[in-house]
Formats: sequence, C-alpha cells, structure tokens
Amino acid sequence: MRVVQKYGGTSVGTIEKIKNIAEHLKKLKDIGTELVVVVSAMGKSTDALIKMAYEINERPCKRELDRLMSTGEQQTIALLTMALHNLGIDAISLTGLQAGITTEGLHTKSKIKKIDAERVVKNLENGKIVIVAGFQGYNEIGDVTTLGRGGSDTSAVALAASLGCHCEIYTDVDGIYTVDPREYSLAKKIDYISYEEMMEMSNLGAGVMEVRAVELGKKYNVPIYVARSLSNTKGTYIKERDEKMEDRVITGLSINENTMMAGIRNIPNNPQDIALIFEELGKEHVNVDMISQSLLGKEILDLSFTCPKTEEDLFDNAISSIKKRLPNINVSKKTELVKISLVGIGMMSHSGVAGIVFSIFAKENIRFYQVTTSEISISYTIDRENKEKAVNAIAKEFTL
Amino acid sequence: MRVVQKYGGTSVGTIEKIKNIAEHLKKLKDIGTELVVVVSAMGKSTDALIKMAYEINERPCKRELDRLMSTGEQQTIALLTMALHNLGIDAISLTGLQAGITTEGLHTKSKIKKIDAERVVKNLENGKIVIVAGFQGYNEIGDVTTLGRGGSDTSAVALAASLGCHCEIYTDVDGIYTVDPREYSLAKKIDYISYEEMMEMSNLGAGVMEVRAVELGKKYNVPIYVARSLSNTKGTYIKERDEKMEDRVITGLSINENTMMAGIRNIPNNPQDIALIFEELGKEHVNVDMISQSLLGKEILDLSFTCPKTEEDLFDNAISSIKKRLPNINVSKKTELVKISLVGIGMMSHSGVAGIVFSIFAKENIRFYQVTTSEISISYTIDRENKEKAVNAIAKEFTL
Repeated sequence: MRVVQKYGGTSVGTIEKIKNIAEHLKKLKDIGTELVVVVSAMGKSTDALIKMAYEINERPCKRELDRLMSTGEQQTIALLTMALHNLGIDAISLTGLQAGITTEGLHTKSKIKKIDAERVVKNLENGKIVIVAGFQGYNEIGDVTTLGRGGSDTSAVALAASLGCHCEIYTDVDGIYTVDPREYSLAKKIDYISYEEMMEMSNLGAGVMEVRAVELGKKYNVPIYVARSLSNTKGTYIKERDEKMEDRVITGLSINENTMMAGIRNIPNNPQDIALIFEELGKEHVNVDMISQSLLGKEILDLSFTCPKTEEDLFDNAISSIKKRLPNINVSKKTELVKISLVGIGMMSHSGVAGIVFSIFAKENIRFYQVTTSEISISYTIDRENKEKAVNAIAKEFTL
Repeated sequence: MRVVQKYGGTSVGTIEKIKNIAEHLKKLKDIGTELVVVVSAMGKSTDALIKMAYEINERPCKRELDRLMSTGEQQTIALLTMALHNLGIDAISLTGLQAGITTEGLHTKSKIKKIDAERVVKNLENGKIVIVAGFQGYNEIGDVTTLGRGGSDTSAVALAASLGCHCEIYTDVDGIYTVDPREYSLAKKIDYISYEEMMEMSNLGAGVMEVRAVELGKKYNVPIYVARSLSNTKGTYIKERDEKMEDRVITGLSINENTMMAGIRNIPNNPQDIALIFEELGKEHVNVDMISQSLLGKEILDLSFTCPKTEEDLFDNAISSIKKRLPNINVSKKTELVKISLVGIGMMSHSGVAGIVFSIFAKENIRFYQVTTSEISISYTIDRENKEKAVNAIAKEFTL
C-alpha cells in the first residue's frame, strides 16, 4: 500500500522525537508500506528565524522571507533521513523542488500549481522511503516559495493526489471533534466527516486542518486521515459524503472568538455610496464576513457586518477614508463577541435547524446580533459572556 | 568597478554584524561599485547542525549532510539581503544553484565544475547587489553539494573568475604574514604574494586561505585580496608573481603542528612489499607527506614518513593490515614534532637556502629528522621543544 504521511513541527521537535518517528516508519516499511513522508520544521525553529528577520527589517521582503523560512524543513528532512539510515532503512530526502512541487502566486502564500512526482515515484519503486520538505515549492523562475499557514498539510494532500493514494496527517490532537474540547468537555470525536463539512468548520474557526488542504482533498478525492502522531487512538477520516453522514443533522459546532461586529448608520441609500464603503474596506484588506442591512426609509440605511478582530486597525483606516466622502455616517464597533456556527450536510435535507437554535436562545435568554446561513451551516454572533451557555445548550440538543 | 567580496562566518555571526556589513556595502554601492557578495553561515551555526546529525547517526549519509549543512548559508543570504533592503539598497539573494554553480565529485567535498553566471550578471546589470550562498553548489542530478573546508573562498574566487573581476576575501585576520604572528610576534604582513607561494604556504599549514581557492585564482588569473573585514588595515594581495616578488629569497615560514613521523624498519627490499605498505596506507586514507628511505643492505630497508597527527588511528589500522603480510617489520611513531617550511619563489634563483638553515640548526643545536624540498619550498621536521628557537633564528636570518 502506498500512503503519504505528514508529521507536524511538534512531532519532529527534538532529536529524540525524530528518532521515534523513524522507528515508527521502519515498522510500516517492514510490513510493505510504500511511504512518502512530509515533514515540517522542528518545533518553533521557523518562528526563531522570522524573529531574526524582523530584527533586521520591519518589513522583510517576502521573497527573502521565503528563502529563510524554507530552511527549517530542509534540516528536518535531512535529519529524519539520517535517522532512517541509522535503522538500516533506505530513504532519501527531497526538497519541494526535487519533489516536483511547482507553485504560483505571491511569496509566503503561494498555491501549488502542479506536481510532477516522477522523482518521488522512481525512489518509491527503488524501495526507498521518500522524505519531502513540506510548506515549500518553487515558482516559475526557480525561487523557493512557501505555502502559508498549514502549508505542510497542503503539500501532503497534493502529493497524495498526484500519487493517487490516501493521506494521513499526524498532529498533536486526536482528530476532529464535534466541538473544540477546550470549550465543551463532553465533545465527541468524529469518525467520518465530509470534505464540505470540514471546509466549513475550518473556515469557521476550527483550527485542526487548513481549509486549502481539505479543498485539495475534495478536488482530487483524496481520503484524509487526521490523528495524533505515534498514538493508537483512532482519528478522523475526511472523505466524500455518504448516506450515513447525511443522517446526522449537525456534525460539528465551531466557535470563532476572533470576531468583531461593526455598525455603520445613516448611509445615503444609493448603490454608489454602498459600493464605496466595501471598496475602501477591500483596499485595506478587511475580510468582511456576515453582512446585514436594514432599510430605515427611502433615503438612508444601516449596515452591520463582522470581520476578524485582528483587523480592527485596517477597519479604522478604511473608516477614515470613507468618512472623507460620507461625513454624516455613524460608526460603532462591538468586540466582546463570538461567532458560533453549526455545520452539517444533514442540514440540506433537514429544515428547522435555525428554528431550534432560535428556541434555545429564547429559552436561555441569549441575545443574538446577526444570523447568516449557507447550504450546510448556520452562524450567529452573540455576546462572549453567553458563549458557554449557548455551546452547552446547542451541543446537548444536537448530541454533539 | 565590479568585485566579488566574501565575508566569513565570524563577520556575519550576529544580527548586528550583518547590519554592519550591509552599511559597509551601501557605501561601496553609493560610489558605484558593482557588488557580488558571497557569505558563509552565521558564526558556528553549521557546527550545531553537524552535532545534531551525529547525535542521530554516527555515520550520516554525506548527501543528507550536504542538505543539512547548506541551510546556514541560505539563512545568511536572506538576512543580509533584508538588511540591505532596510537601507534602501536593491539586492537579491541567490543560492549556489541559482548563481549557476555546478559541481562534481563526492558530497561534502565537491569541486566546482562550471559557473553559468547569467542570473548574477543580469541582476548586476539591473543595479542590484547580488548576495550568493557560499560553500554550496549543485551536482548533475540537482542535489545540493558542499565544497569542503574553506569552500566559501572557493565559491568567491570561482565567481570572480567567471565574472572576470577581482576577488576580496574578508576574514578575521589582517592578511598573510611571513610567519603566524602567534608564533613569532615580529612577523610582518606581506603586501604581495604569488599564487604559488600562497598555495605552498596553505598546503604547509598556514590556515588563512584554502589551497583550492588559491589554485583557482592562479588558473583563471584572479587577483585575490585578503584582509580583515570592516577594517582599514591594509591586507595582502595574492597575484601573479612579478620581479619584485622574486627579489625576496624567502616570503614566509609555515609551521605545521599537526605532524607525526612514522618509522618502519626491517622491510624486505623489494618493490612489491614497499608498494603493499603504501597501498594499505592509501586504503585507510592516510595522507603521507615527507618520505625518506635509507638502504641498510641489499635485503632490508627502513622507511620514514610524516602524516597528520589527526590520522594516527587510520595509520594504526593500516599498520595492522601491513603486519599480517610483513610480520617482521618494526614500527615506531614520533608525535612531539613540528614541521617547519620556508616558502619563496626567490628560492628558484637563489641556491643555498638549505645550507643557511643547516648552519642555523647546527649553531642553535637543533636536531632535524627529515628534510624535503620543492621548487619553492624547503621543509624540516624538528622536535616541538625546538620550535621557538628555530622560528626565531630563521625569521631573523631571512628578515621575515
């Protein structure tokens, strides 16, 4: 059997841990598994490099930052390969370039364009374990690029896609839970989840898998298994949806604390002025999320929307620009909020989830500010002080 | 003016030092210098990586060792480039591959095969300072390779050769001295030295420049300037010999403490058995240096030779093998020795240097064990306890 495995920074954080991973890989190799292993940089080593960069230049060039950040993975692949050799296992390390991973787009957040896995396959056929540097590829002029947050997951899934095999992501959590166990101690591990639900949950704040990796898995139909590294505890499969999954109304609940809500009142009710507002927000790269608008009369309207709390500065910059053109608007911000989202492909066939949640909120006396829905999710903004009450009531209702 | 400069690990050992180098480069750029800058890994960072490798595997694969060791330079080039950007200077970093440095030969001690400096030149023409990772290149299958001891010097001289410009090596010494100043405090800095003399001195133990870099300089007639980094003290030019140099009888004196002498007595006097001895030494990679042989009679002979003291283990292994075939030989070792060498192209036209040294040794009552000569050098092994006496007397005689 051929498989791509990925081990994150914590799993390869010390010499001892690298040796442990090597022992584990030897066992798999001994029972005939063909292994491609994607690894991240050791522990927090990349953070130390980034710190140096910012000590030298407050706005380091992203091309040079990619050069710097891509060295940690080169070190891990060499060390893990040496550890395998030490156990008598044939293995070879390959950089992103050597594994044929070409990218496009901006430095520090490139996207994988194409994988030419010829050298990977040749080495597998020669009986070697192939150790590949995650998080990196090369662009069309041969410069090293990195893939942004969760980039090693993306490397692993993309390699699995090009090899036509499944992908195992080993990390420091046991798998995907219905609710973040730190928020709700009774949360259950999910055995199977569909790509769509996982993407929705990632987007809505569940931190385990980066949405781009799941997206790639869906596109190329790569089954992804997420589990704790070197543990016997069963993890979670992310795969195509099936009937069994659709029987569940709600699969999971995501909680996003990085949410602020902005209100803009007294906007002249014409398309140009409304467009102006979103143009200025776009120029500042504010990620506008849940939008509501209320018509007050013919002449003016009120808008509210959420955006990440970490973008408050950008939001303020945008508002300054907007006020130059629309001096009469009133702006308010609300930062003590959380966004709670229910996700489940069962929602498509079961109506009434929104109604049940409204009832819970009424019964528990929880005020909500906004509600938005997609085909497989429904999200609410509520006061942070009500978070625990809401999570417990919803989780209980939907037996999460 | 176009120039290749090289800064060693000590010169770029901290963030502060990298910033200082950037300031210095800015000044050169401001007066119109076209700069290619070759850098080493920061301080002792490569040593730390090698230590990790040996903790994982006592005999790490050299391909993987090259992968690991080549990361330090990638970090330095990124950081120095960011430091230049911070001063408003246009600069770009290039790896060995990107600078077109292809190599051949074994991993960890590859040789530069060819430089295709197209990308370097294009960037110089676009007004950029080009920062190149020293010590590394790529072999014909695209694997990173390193160039062995002093490899960054070799990278710099090779780049200067391909760009047809001169090369400046900045290090933590002031230049080349007639005698190592730690051994003879009255030693003088040499303003000009020929490639041949420098190669001889490097070979004979003067640690400032690696012999391969000088060899390349001679082959492509690249003038090399060696000086202390960020210092105004004048350094040493290594260049083609001229008449002025030939007026000096002796240019320098090298002292090599890493010397042991072996004596092998009672060897059957036939070519096969003598060949056997050197074959076994060769198999163990013992670097045999000064060889003397004395014929005792028709049947047996004695041999003595020197080799690096650091190879004593290898020597012992070789002797074990030899004794299996030649059980009657007697082997002795002498480790409390130094090798003293006088170097100067003036020797070719001035005879009698050996005679003068013999007189000094007689007058000072210094016993010597071996003497060997080349066209531009003469070497003696003496007891270590006589080192200071010999160095002082010779340096005084030849006004070094």
